[in-house]
Parts: sequence; C-alpha cells; structure tokens
Amino acid sequence: HTIVLLPGDGIGPEVAAAARAVLEAVAPHHGLSLTFESHDIGGCAIDAHGDPFPEATAKACATADAVFLGAVGGPKWDGGGPRPEAGLLALRKTLGAFANLRPITLFPGLEHLSPLKEERVAGTDMLIVRELTGGIYFGDKVEGDDHASDLCSYSRDEVERIARIAFAAARERKGRVTSVDKANVLATSRLWRKTVVALRDADYPDVELDHVLVDAMAMKLIEQPSAFDVILTENMFGDILSDEASVIAGSIGLAPSASLSQTHGGLYEPIHGSAPDIAGQGKANPIGAMLSAAMLLRHALDAGGAAAHIERAVADCLAGGVGTADIGGTEHTDAVIAAVCDRIG
Amino acid sequence: HTIVLLPGDGIGPEVAAAARAVLEAVAPHHGLSLTFESHDIGGCAIDAHGDPFPEATAKACATADAVFLGAVGGPKWDGGGPRPEAGLLALRKTLGAFANLRPITLFPGLEHLSPLKEERVAGTDMLIVRELTGGIYFGDKVEGDDHASDLCSYSRDEVERIARIAFAAARERKGRVTSVDKANVLATSRLWRKTVVALRDADYPDVELDHVLVDAMAMKLIEQPSAFDVILTENMFGDILSDEASVIAGSIGLAPSASLSQTHGGLYEPIHGSAPDIAGQGKANPIGAMLSAAMLLRHALDAGGAAAHIERAVADCLAGGVGTADIGGTEHTDAVIAAVCDRIG
Ligand SMILES: CC(C)[C@H](C(=O)O)[C@@H](O)C(=O)O
Ligand SMILES: CC(C)[C@H](C(=O)O)[C@@H](O)C(=O)O
Repeated sequence: HTIVLLPGDGIGPEVAAAARAVLEAVAPHHGLSLTFESHDIGGCAIDAHGDPFPEATAKACATADAVFLGAVGGPKWDGGGPRPEAGLLALRKTLGAFANLRPITLFPGLEHLSPLKEERVAGTDMLIVRELTGGIYFGDKVEGDDHASDLCSYSRDEVERIARIAFAAARERKGRVTSVDKANVLATSRLWRKTVVALRDADYPDVELDHVLVDAMAMKLIEQPSAFDVILTENMFGDILSDEASVIAGSIGLAPSASLSQTHGGLYEPIHGSAPDIAGQGKANPIGAMLSAAMLLRHALDAGGAAAHIERAVADCLAGGVGTADIGGTEHTDAVIAAVCDRIG
Repeated sequence: HTIVLLPGDGIGPEVAAAARAVLEAVAPHHGLSLTFESHDIGGCAIDAHGDPFPEATAKACATADAVFLGAVGGPKWDGGGPRPEAGLLALRKTLGAFANLRPITLFPGLEHLSPLKEERVAGTDMLIVRELTGGIYFGDKVEGDDHASDLCSYSRDEVERIARIAFAAARERKGRVTSVDKANVLATSRLWRKTVVALRDADYPDVELDHVLVDAMAMKLIEQPSAFDVILTENMFGDILSDEASVIAGSIGLAPSASLSQTHGGLYEPIHGSAPDIAGQGKANPIGAMLSAAMLLRHALDAGGAAAHIERAVADCLAGGVGTADIGGTEHTDAVIAAVCDRIG
C-alpha cells in the first residue's frame, strides 16, 4: 500500500510524522506493508514550485492508496499571490473527496478539558458528515476592489450522495441523523432539505431524521452536545460547526477526519490547522493526526483491526495523562508519539 | 413618537407585549409621549393577507419613528408557499436596516446559567455588529429540484458602512474590533478584509483591529468569550455567531438587538425566534424584548436615560432571581414583565 504524506505548513510536518510513526508501528502487527512518499502542498509548495498543488503532488496523490495531509496555510502567504488553501481545495476536488467525516468524541476522563460544564459534555459522541467538494467554496468567484461575489450552488445528486453517507453511518451508530441547513432563507438549503427527506423516506425509513437551522445548531451544540448522533451538513456550515464541536470535546488537537471518495482511497487529516505560532516547537498535539491515521487504515485499507489498535493505544495514553499542553499535559509532541507507539508495540 | 409593533408569530405577541409594557412604564418618567400601532408580519400576515409583508405594514413601518418586532416563522408555514421569514427580510431591506447590533453580556450573578465553566464565561461583554441587508441572504437565488444556488455578494460601500459602525462602537467601548471572515476561501471575505483594513488605517487608527476566520471564531467564542470587545462580521456569519454567543451568556432569551438605518429610526427585536413549541404558555422570556425596547429608546429616540432606566430595572430583577424557566426561574412571562415594570415605577 502506498501512502502519500503531504506534511504542508506550520505544525503540519510534526503531525504528519506522528501519523507515519503510528502507521509504521501498527503495520507489522496486522500483516500490512506500507510504503510512504512525501510531497509538497500549500505554502511550502508555493515557495518551492510557485504552485500550492504542483503537478507532481497531484499525480502522486491520484495513484496512492490513501493520502495523509498535515495542514496548510499561514500569515506568510497572506499578502496576495497564490494561497496555500487553494492547494487543499484542489486536492479535495481532484480526489473527489466529497464526504468529510469528523467524529467528535469526548474521551472518558477528559471532561475537565471541555470549556463546558462537565455534566453538559459527558457522553458526547457525534459524527459530523460534511459535504466537502461543493457549495460556496467551489462556486464561481468574482474578485474585486469595489465588488466581490461567491456563488453557493448544489445539485440534487451532490446532496443525495453525501446524505447516503450520513444515513449509512447512522445505521452503524444510534440511528439518528440531524440535518443542518438554513432552509428559511437559502434556496440551496431548501433543495438540501427536500432531497434529504426524500432519500430518507425512500431508502432509509429506519433512520430517525430531524432538521435544525444552522444558527440554532450553533447553540444546541453547546447546550446539549451529547444529544447528537450523526450531523449532516453542507461544506461551509460543516466547517464552522465541526470546529465549534471540537473544542467542546476538549481540544481541536484531538479531532481527526477522513474525506472519502467514490474513486479513491481518500484523504485523511486532523481538523486543526497549521498553527504557525507554535510550529517547530514540539507543542503540536499529534493525537488528531494519529486518529486520522487510524481512519485511513479503516476506510482506505479496510484494516479496521489495525485502526482500533491505534485508537486503543491513544485512549490508553490519554487516560494515563500523557499529552501536550493544549490538553493540560506537559509532554513534547515527540514524547506523545513515542508513548502511543510504545503502547501499540 | 410613533412606534410600530409587529408581534409576528409564536411567542412574538407575548414578547411584544413586554416591550410595550416597559416603554409605557418608563415614558412618563422621561417626558416621553409614545403612540403604538400594531401590524401583521410573517406567518400571521400570510394567514390574514396572503403576504408576509403586507403593504399596510410596510407603509406603517416606513413612517414610524421606530419598529419593534417580536418574531416570525414556525412549522405551520414550512409546507411551500410564501415564507414568514421573507417578511422579516423585506422589512430589514425596506428600512435600510443594515447595521445589526447584538450586545452579548453576562449579567453578574448569572454565571451559573452558562453552559460554560464559570471562570471561562466571567466578564463576557461583547457587541456583535452584523451586516444585515447584504450577502447571501439577499443575492440572486435559483430554486429547483435538481439544482439550486444562492449568490453571496458584497460591495465595498456596504462593507465600509458597517465597518464604520463597528469602529465607532469600539471607541465607546474598549477600542478593539475583531473582524470575522473566511478570507482564505471566499472572494467576498477578501474584499471584506481589505476594506476593513483600509478604513481602519484611514479613519480609525486608534482602534485595535484583528481578523479571525469564521471557523476559528466559532471555537474562540467558547474558549475565551471574555476576550472580545466588538465583533464585526457579514450577514450569515453574524447570524450563526450571535446565536452561539447568546447561549454562552446564559440564554438566548436575554439577548436584544437593534438594526440601524441611515434613513429610519430602525428595527428592534430580541434575537430569539418564534419558539412555536412554547407559544401562548407564558414561558417566553421577555427580557430580550425589554432590552430591545431599551435599545429603541437609545438609538431611535435619543432617550439614553430612559434606556438605562429599563436596563437597570431588568438587571435588578435578574439579580433578585426573577425569571422564566430558561434562566432557572419559576415565573410566568407576565410576572417577569410586572416585576420589571414595578421596578421601573
Ligand atoms: C484550510 C481551510 C480551507 C479548511 C476548510 O475550511 O475547509 C479548513 O478550515 C478545514 O476545515 O479543513
Ligand atoms: C428568522 C431569520 C431570517 C433571522 C436571520 O437569520 O436573520 C434570524 O435567525 C435572526 O438572526 O434574526
């Protein structure tokens, strides 16, 4: 199996190293043979090649069994010219990685990390299913000094295929989907809601479905995070709500993601960003990256046992108090990686 | 002074009665003479006139000194046909009410109401300045069964005039503006950021300005709500973030808003919605409406003393434990209204 690593910018290289380390540690226990290749993306690719998503990177990703991305972006590339984030968006689009899965779980024993009162947050275990290759991120843009616009557009097929992912996931969980939209104002949200309802009625009558407006959802996530099972939403709303949910569960540094495609093994990345302020200092929390590596094993390589092996090792280390400063620990990034790899071994 | 009341749907009539009651209670103490007129808007206007924003309502609002709105919307009007919310959007547009001010303040003594740990939320006192008549809410819409779209568009002038409101407000507060956008992805956000920076440099060099991406802001509001002074953002982001912030400060039922215009006295409404599930049961929290009435006095009638009079009465009642169930109290809506009016008298 060939895995392409795209370390990217900021703390990206530190967390990509974490992903690689756990994959290498777990592989021999499950008869997996993994080959790694690293390529540039984002700001570092702009610096080296003048392009946030160079041809060589695109090619390597397309033929790989799975892609792991660290993070992209930083103030260094804010001054005009190509943007690091354009590389990530192009990657998602190229791979057809339309289905972004963001599990948000409160690790038992880490309740004290949440900014929420402990009784509010206890039991939180949700899966955010975010549409990732449509909506306002990819619509026509007009850039200008006097006027600018972004088009948000969705087709029924795009809504249906992401909704299928959510309903199927709900069947493996508690059987409930909460679809988030702004149907009282947006045309795309009305199409979204109609499509989701029709699909449920036709193909997933056993799954419970409700609808919450995005503004109300931003409240409910805080008021009762444990009330949710699967949350289904479009690209931009998913961006906002998944970041919000991640801090509720303790730290964005803990949250992994998988972006699935119909034609490729997919893209795996922690949901935290490049955090340039702490880059290179050993402060990055590698857990989100390691859990993303576990998702890679499960979804791209059908190696659920190996994935669970990593997840158990991470949970044990967290329960044992191992962690970086963002989760109240004192460890260096590398020490956390070493602890999890030890535990795997 | 003529004030148009638009009770609207759900709990709207109950909270509009609260606004009227405190205005009538405070007026004689400040030599104000107020006349009230009520008109239909939203779902009830659809039912009575087939139009969520009937001509008679539009006319009355246009000539009034200020407009108070309860709330619009409900599942009753979800089935296709005209939407209650279209009435509210048309009202905002007709009045030119582009500047939505949403103060989010933790009332001292109500820390326990917040879903956040008390030490996190203590000291929260922010003003969200939301652009209200542009962006994706008002762009061209394509409705369809196979495809739909919404256009998000902003002009430099639209950004500049709302940014002026935020900078001017910051000067009366702690002198800091946090502008929220998604400039790493959206063209409108890049125009937004450029315009805000240029305006600050030219006309408000004394105001501190920083920029936070909307996804990061959804986190920071929870992580350190007390870190913010004025938050400046576009229509849709402001919708989401202000609802999120309101629960952090205890309950959305407490949060007022003012929507200011360059040509009209403005529109005043609590930020909670129509809450059809509790309508007519005396459970609605009237505080957001009463504080919106105070904003009406301050901004539309230049009666800052009368506004402060209401605000003091509300704060005293809250400190004395008066309140509806959403803030841990046992009172009926009318009992809270009576308590505040008593205190005013
Ligand atoms: C870097 C940025 C383009 C990206 C997004 O908004 O999709 C990030 O915030 C994320 O959530 O993966
Ligand atoms: C009712 C709805 C159209 C409205 C909005 O989204 O602007 C409401 O949520 C608000 O925030 O005032």
